[in-house]
Parts: sequence; structure tokens; C-alpha cells
Amino acid sequence: MTQGRQVEIVEVGPRDGYQGIDPFIPTQTKIWLLERLVAAGLNRIEVGSFVSEKALPQMRDTHEVLAVCVRWPSLKPQVLVPNEKWGRSAVAAGAKQLVFVLSVSESHNRNNVRRTPAESVEEYGRLLQAIPSDTKIRLDLATSFDCPFEGRVPQEKALSLLDRLVELKSDAEICLCDTTGRADPAHVESLFTAAKKRFPNVQAWALHAHDTYGLGLANVNVAYRAGVRVFDASFAGLGGCPFAPGATGNVATEDLVWMFERMGVSTGIDIEALLPVAQEGAKIPGGLSGGRVRDALTSRPDACAAARQT
Amino acid sequence: MTQGRQVEIVEVGPRDGYQGIDPFIPTQTKIWLLERLVAAGLNRIEVGSFVSEKALPQMRDTHEVLAVCVRWPSLKPQVLVPNEKWGRSAVAAGAKQLVFVLSVSESHNRNNVRRTPAESVEEYGRLLQAIPSDTKIRLDLATSFDCPFEGRVPQEKALSLLDRLVELKSDAEICLCDTTGRADPAHVESLFTAAKKRFPNVQAWALHAHDTYGLGLANVNVAYRAGVRVFDASFAGLGGCPFAPGATGNVATEDLVWMFERMGVSTGIDIEALLPVAQEGAKIPGGLSGGRVRDALTSRPDACAAARQT
Repeated sequence: MTQGRQVEIVEVGPRDGYQGIDPFIPTQTKIWLLERLVAAGLNRIEVGSFVSEKALPQMRDTHEVLAVCVRWPSLKPQVLVPNEKWGRSAVAAGAKQLVFVLSVSESHNRNNVRRTPAESVEEYGRLLQAIPSDTKIRLDLATSFDCPFEGRVPQEKALSLLDRLVELKSDAEICLCDTTGRADPAHVESLFTAAKKRFPNVQAWALHAHDTYGLGLANVNVAYRAGVRVFDASFAGLGGCPFAPGATGNVATEDLVWMFERMGVSTGIDIEALLPVAQEGAKIPGGLSGGRVRDALTSRPDACAAARQT
Repeated sequence: MTQGRQVEIVEVGPRDGYQGIDPFIPTQTKIWLLERLVAAGLNRIEVGSFVSEKALPQMRDTHEVLAVCVRWPSLKPQVLVPNEKWGRSAVAAGAKQLVFVLSVSESHNRNNVRRTPAESVEEYGRLLQAIPSDTKIRLDLATSFDCPFEGRVPQEKALSLLDRLVELKSDAEICLCDTTGRADPAHVESLFTAAKKRFPNVQAWALHAHDTYGLGLANVNVAYRAGVRVFDASFAGLGGCPFAPGATGNVATEDLVWMFERMGVSTGIDIEALLPVAQEGAKIPGGLSGGRVRDALTSRPDACAAARQT
């Protein structure tokens, strides 16, 4: 984490926010938005996915977007990969941090990557073998709390899958993802507390929260209390999983920044610079925006200063 | 609290939700919505205000709405009063529970009731003398956390005001109100913890949360953790304070029910019966609705059952 920041917000809008959007967002627009996100202080951004163009046509220019990231020395870009093959492509394109995704629930994993979770664990092992040892790894555990097809996911199911994943690489950052937005604060606290106890060697835990049912910030807050310091968020609240019906809306970056700064927890992000980028994000044709802070601050632009009233 | 309920949700939509709406909502519509709210399990409802018709024309039929409440034996209606005079009128109209409102910050109190907070404390004393001793009292402390004119309200300011109020009547229910929606979870936890410690004889604490900045549920959750068991909410997230610019949106009743039921905390409210009432509430001409659960469940009506997946 960069010095002075007490929490790290990972901007996932350019991946999770854009991926479900049709029509294609021009590459130059993506780069322009990226530049402004970096200027607002976002120094860790998920800039895209290396995936089949057929599955996610919006992500077909990720190699171009990744290539321009060298312009910004403060930026640590990360890209999502679903398997070893695409992981190799990402590394060949210059990626230094990969996000490998698999789901705790079998039906969601089959839907997403056409594998059982056990097969994805094997694929993860192959990926780790195939890439340079200094490549940073983040593991995204989709449906850690709830699955669009199976409902509430038992805690032990997530922990058992982690037994095998942590064994393969104990220094990966592990992100528990609330794919459907139906995790509740008690569940979030319970799972993170159990996971941190069971895997004391894992250094970095993260939460990927969705705001579909309005619980995004409540879940982030309890995860923070449980010791989590890395949080995914999407500017303008863009997002949703195309394979999870109703899973609209990542928690909005500006909402997270607002909450933490009001609590006196430094994010390193300038909300006055972020606000106009979020406003642009909300205008992307075909996008589905969310969050509350953007509208609240837009109606009272002087109110940005209140984020620093701690 | 009714047996079997682990938290008490006070439906304030018919007061806080309606009061800023123009045009007038026909009395028969108000009664029809009230009946459906009661049928959904809401047994404590703020049905209106006894206030000047000139100040809040929408509330001019509160006596009529209050009068029909005897139809529903399960319902405990409450009405808001700004002073002794209107308190007498409410009691004469049959009110058994009054909500007396004053603000912690001077500028908001002057704006709202044209008095200093100290003058409102005196008025509260006069009100208590003027009404039958078995009248239940709830105290609403507006701007307990933040003021639209003065910004963050120091914790000690709220506690000092409570010193005088609790002395006048120690068995009143005390509701700390986040008038602007800018309270953050750390502030909410800190103030409730300090207040409960300073006033151990106060039996019932409540939180009135607004969702303007997306923090409604996060604040409710930390207040619950701090021992608060009474929460104001407005169906369809209707609301906002006409005297607090930007203070749009009470936390939505359906969002609160969803969160608590997912956490295994019983609210006594049937979300499947509440959902269609919230949909009607969102259609009230001139109303400003909020919340997320209404839309999330409307797009997947089968998902109501998930609220019980604990």
C-alpha cells in the first residue's frame, strides 16, 4: 500500500464496470478516463481482462489499454485472466499483476469458465507454473457468499476451496467477492474473521462488494472492522456481472472514498477530482451506474469539502 | 417491542416521506397505503404531524388519518409535534404517542421551529406538563451528527443537550437523527456508545438514518451493534427534510427489512407484502423515492424468499 493511505481502493470500473456494456467504448475514451482516474489518486486499477473476444467483446482492447499504463509511474495496473492460456498472453503483453477468478459455487463457475471449482484450482496451479515468479497474483473468489443459482453459499465451502488455493501460493492477495450483492454484514464479518484465523499467513485480504441491495457500504465497513484493507469499487458504480442475473452495481468508488474520508480513514483519493470522472462514467452509453454520493455532491458541489470534516 | 421481533422498525414515510411532497396526497390514498403497511407487519407508524398547515400543507389531514388508526388493533401510531400547543391538539385528537423534535445545532433549530435549542428544551418541559402522564414520548434530536448549515456537530454538543432533556423525562425514547445523511459509521457508533454510557437509565434508543450518501444501512448496522433496537425508515425510501438542502432520502423500509432478515434478525415484517406497497409509494406524484431493494426484488420477484435464507 502506498504510504499515507490507510485503505487501498482498487478501481475495477474499467474491467467489471465496462465488461457488460454494449456498445464498445472507444479505446481512446478508456484511456482518457484512465488518465483522469489516475489523476484523482487511484493508483491500483483493474484495466481489463484477457479473455475470449467472443465472450466479452468489450475487453478486446485490454492489451492496448495495458500498454499505455507505463505513462503513469504511480499506477499499478492489474488484469483479469480466466485460465493459464490467457495468463500467458497477459504476461506477454506486459502484465505484472494478474487476477485469477474462480467461483466457490459449482454452477456459477461452470457458467463463468465452464469448469468445476476443482478444475479451476488445477488451472490455477498451471497458471502459477507458467508465469514469472515475480508476477503478483490476486485471487478473486466469486460467489463467496451467495450464488445467483444456488443461493447462500455455506461458509465452509469457501474455506475448503481456500485450503487448496492458499497451499498453492500463500502470498497471493485473496479477494472474497459478493457477486450477487446479497451478502449481509453479519455474513461478511463471519467469513473474513474465519478466513483470517484459518490462514494466518495470507497477508492481504480484499472485499469485492456489490450494491444491488444497498448493502455495499455496510459490508465494506464491517470488513474494514474485521481488518480488511483492500476494497474493490467502480467509479460511478458501473458494473454488474453478465452471468449473474440482477447483480447490477459495484459499490461506487466515490461512495467508498466519501465513507472512509468522513471516518478519518485516508484513501489517498481526491474526491473533488474523482467526482467529474464519475459524472463522465455515468454517461457512458449502455452503462448502468449506481451509488449515491455522485448525485448528492453534484447537487451541492461545495459539499466535497465535507469529506475532510473529520 | 412486540414479541418475536428482535428490532423495531418505525415506518416514518407517512410523516417524513410525505411532508415535502407537493401536490397533496388525498387522505383516502394515505389511509389505503397505511392499511397495506399495517398488513405487511408494520405496527409502529409515524402517521403525520400536528403542525401549522401553512408550514406543511401536506400534513393538514393528520387528525383524520390518526382517527382511523383505531381500525387496526396492532398499530401504535405516533405523531410529530413541534411545541406544546400542537402537542395539546394531538392529544385532544386521540394521540397516545407524541414525537417532539428539536435540533442539536442552533441554526437548524431556528430554521425548523424558530427557537434556540435551549428554548426548545423549555418548550419540551411545558409540553410534558400539558399532556396526560401516560402519553408516550419519543424525542427526535435532529442534526445529532451533522447540520446542513454548520457541518459536523461535535459529539459533546448532542450529549450536553441530552443532559437537560433526559433530566426532564428519563423514560422517553430518544432518537438520534442523521438529518443530512452525512453521519458515518464511526461517528454513529461513537455517539451511541457515549450516550448509552452517559444515560444508563434511558431504556430505548433509536436511529433515524438518511441514505443521501449511501450510508443509511451501514449506519443502521453499526447502531445495531452498539445496542440500538429501534430504527426509523420510510417505505420506498420516500423522504427528505424540506429545511435541509440535499437531505433527500430516508433509509428505505424494505432495505432495512432485507438487511436484518438476511442477518437472521427478525423484524416481524413480511417483505413480500411490503414490496408492492413500496412500489405504490414510489409512484406518488411529486415524491422522491430511494433505496435499492425495491428495484432489485422487482426485477426478480422470486428473490423475496432469499430474505429468509438465514
